[in-house]
Amino acid sequence: MVSLDLIREISRSSASKIVLLVIDGLGGLPKPETGKTELETARTPNLDNLAAKGICGRCDPVAPGITPGSAPGHLALFGYDPVSCIIGRGVLEALGIDFELAPEDVAARGNFCTLDERGLVTDRRAGRISTEKNAELCRLLDGQLIDGVKVIVRPVKEHRLVVVFRGQGLAAEVTDSDPQQIGVAPNEVSALKRPANRTANITRRFIARAREILTRHHPANMLLLRGFSKKPELPTMAEVFKLKAAAIASYPVYRGLAKVVGMEILETGNTFEDELETLKQNYLSYDYFFIHIKETDAAAEDGDFDRKVALIEQIDSILASLIDLEPDVIVVTGDHSTPALLKGHSWHPVPVLLFSKWCRPDKVSQFSESACLSGGLGCFPATQLMPLAMANALKLNKFGA
Amino acid sequence: MVSLDLIREISRSSASKIVLLVIDGLGGLPKPETGKTELETARTPNLDNLAAKGICGRCDPVAPGITPGSAPGHLALFGYDPVSCIIGRGVLEALGIDFELAPEDVAARGNFCTLDERGLVTDRRAGRISTEKNAELCRLLDGQLIDGVKVIVRPVKEHRLVVVFRGQGLAAEVTDSDPQQIGVAPNEVSALKRPANRTANITRRFIARAREILTRHHPANMLLLRGFSKKPELPTMAEVFKLKAAAIASYPVYRGLAKVVGMEILETGNTFEDELETLKQNYLSYDYFFIHIKETDAAAEDGDFDRKVALIEQIDSILASLIDLEPDVIVVTGDHSTPALLKGHSWHPVPVLLFSKWCRPDKVSQFSESACLSGGLGCFPATQLMPLAMANALKLNKFGA
Repeated sequence: MVSLDLIREISRSSASKIVLLVIDGLGGLPKPETGKTELETARTPNLDNLAAKGICGRCDPVAPGITPGSAPGHLALFGYDPVSCIIGRGVLEALGIDFELAPEDVAARGNFCTLDERGLVTDRRAGRISTEKNAELCRLLDGQLIDGVKVIVRPVKEHRLVVVFRGQGLAAEVTDSDPQQIGVAPNEVSALKRPANRTANITRRFIARAREILTRHHPANMLLLRGFSKKPELPTMAEVFKLKAAAIASYPVYRGLAKVVGMEILETGNTFEDELETLKQNYLSYDYFFIHIKETDAAAEDGDFDRKVALIEQIDSILASLIDLEPDVIVVTGDHSTPALLKGHSWHPVPVLLFSKWCRPDKVSQFSESACLSGGLGCFPATQLMPLAMANALKLNKFGA
Repeated sequence: MVSLDLIREISRSSASKIVLLVIDGLGGLPKPETGKTELETARTPNLDNLAAKGICGRCDPVAPGITPGSAPGHLALFGYDPVSCIIGRGVLEALGIDFELAPEDVAARGNFCTLDERGLVTDRRAGRISTEKNAELCRLLDGQLIDGVKVIVRPVKEHRLVVVFRGQGLAAEVTDSDPQQIGVAPNEVSALKRPANRTANITRRFIARAREILTRHHPANMLLLRGFSKKPELPTMAEVFKLKAAAIASYPVYRGLAKVVGMEILETGNTFEDELETLKQNYLSYDYFFIHIKETDAAAEDGDFDRKVALIEQIDSILASLIDLEPDVIVVTGDHSTPALLKGHSWHPVPVLLFSKWCRPDKVSQFSESACLSGGLGCFPATQLMPLAMANALKLNKFGA
């Protein structure tokens, strides 16, 4: 991988525009009955047309055999080494609700949960309480001051919340209280390293108070915390790539990931159509757009092959309005594969399509896992995608004399 | 990339011979009217025949998306990491005129230029004065002693010259005086790091004296300096690969690059035919030959698709005399792509052909970008080419027990 320092040295700002369309969990596995993956089953004339005019290949988000979470999957697509740039769950969740994390903040992802009279977890999601109830409970917990540390509590959705500890000298190296199973008591938070002792102590005191406050609010009579983390300090895309980058994503966590690398977050609706409308409205104001579509991954995680196929067809059918904007570079790929057959993220390389006036086209005329096998981009680490997109947008100067 | 230390450990000297033919800027982009690149358009029976019997692929000189200058492009082909081995413009220019740089020398590339009465640059090339006039002016500037440092001034070609500062304790970290544009005054040379303060000072004094000396020589009434650099200390090809390596290149800068890795420079003429004659005459004395052809790159930089095609055909037509020598390994590639459509170096992978008795042939029967897509070498970093050539020449011992 070429270092971000090298890219920073040769990148240049220009009027050309790059659009990265991430179809979450795009890659799949063939259905035994047909021998075709979700993408191969879907009728995708627009994607096929782009593939025919562009260059295709496959990328490994992290490395061959490694199944990535959403964070490494996206960081790699943004050009950042997903192994050295670790983003904790708490930070992601906080960024996803547009919470402005200070550099010293420690954030944890929380669930409201149900404890029985013996103190054992009976439901890790407290019966998926409403987001309104969640907000009401968060107000009860928010704003405590413990040993000079302010504890900020914010609702996310249904049973999910974010807890941010704000103060001097906090450390994120503490264990989760969430046992990730039912029938056991929450774990006691403890320090993984000595400098985190105080943070662990404050967290334990906060959890104890929360239990008291929540005791009358069955089924949400307790909370579980996990993924304690601080925001990583990454150079922004403006610094590295000299891009004015914007993110269009309906799901919080993807907005959060975009924010970590300094993208501006554009308000948008819940559908891909909404996202394309947002793209249109903001097209002149940025030179890089990251557009995220979540539903394909969700369908595949549910094991619903056909729904994923239908969603891909639907995406394809409205892709023309993106193509009509004539971005200099269009990249279509996923942050990882999610084969419906596996009902989860997988390690399989993700199909990649890059279209630009300056790409050297290959013979691929269909956007699919098997067609991409013979693509001109070969199989490559996803971190190479940004330099390639930048090159095809003529945004990289020559390296060396 | 396998380290040079590992190669040094397993390389062995033998009678077998390797010829690396670098067709500068070889890779291209398809002409929209035909869908064929320069190489695909050219009729190349000899190259196709070699491709059919050999193994093909594509290489990235530096990394995907990175457009290399000539120096990184060639260093990679010679097996050296082009990112860590940086060669400055000044050093390149000095080596290219067969100037023997001492390890402590600081070299700068110079242009004679024209200043108007206000001291602003009106022509960065002083009307491209003749090489004879250049030599005459260099003699006026040469040999000054400033603060114990000898300033050596040598003509290159037309308006170009080399200035070498020779003395103790010099540092290359100084800024260019060449503003790279007209209508402005030359920049004042300043130190980028404190140890370069004295060098910057000496350079400023030299430039001031040069201005006085040149004042009556309009249009060449001033000089501009850039690319201050010292010769990098690289292990030679003899040390790493145990090769007796020779370079045959009609253009100075490529001879200079070959010299940096310790090749011997063979005197040759201006044409590929001259170069092949030089190869024949010296064939018994060396076991590695680097042959460089510049014209293809020049044609593509001019945007002249057809001239590049014609040059490739011409190269192919006289290739038989190289093949007839029956080298054990023939490698044909470029140091980078230069598509006529882009009129400049580009990031596109470069087609590679490796012919040897011991290669495992693939199905490629034409030497072209698209045919190389399915070549047995795949797409690989150009630094891997030397180990591959060495292996195919049976010049690498087994690694490990």
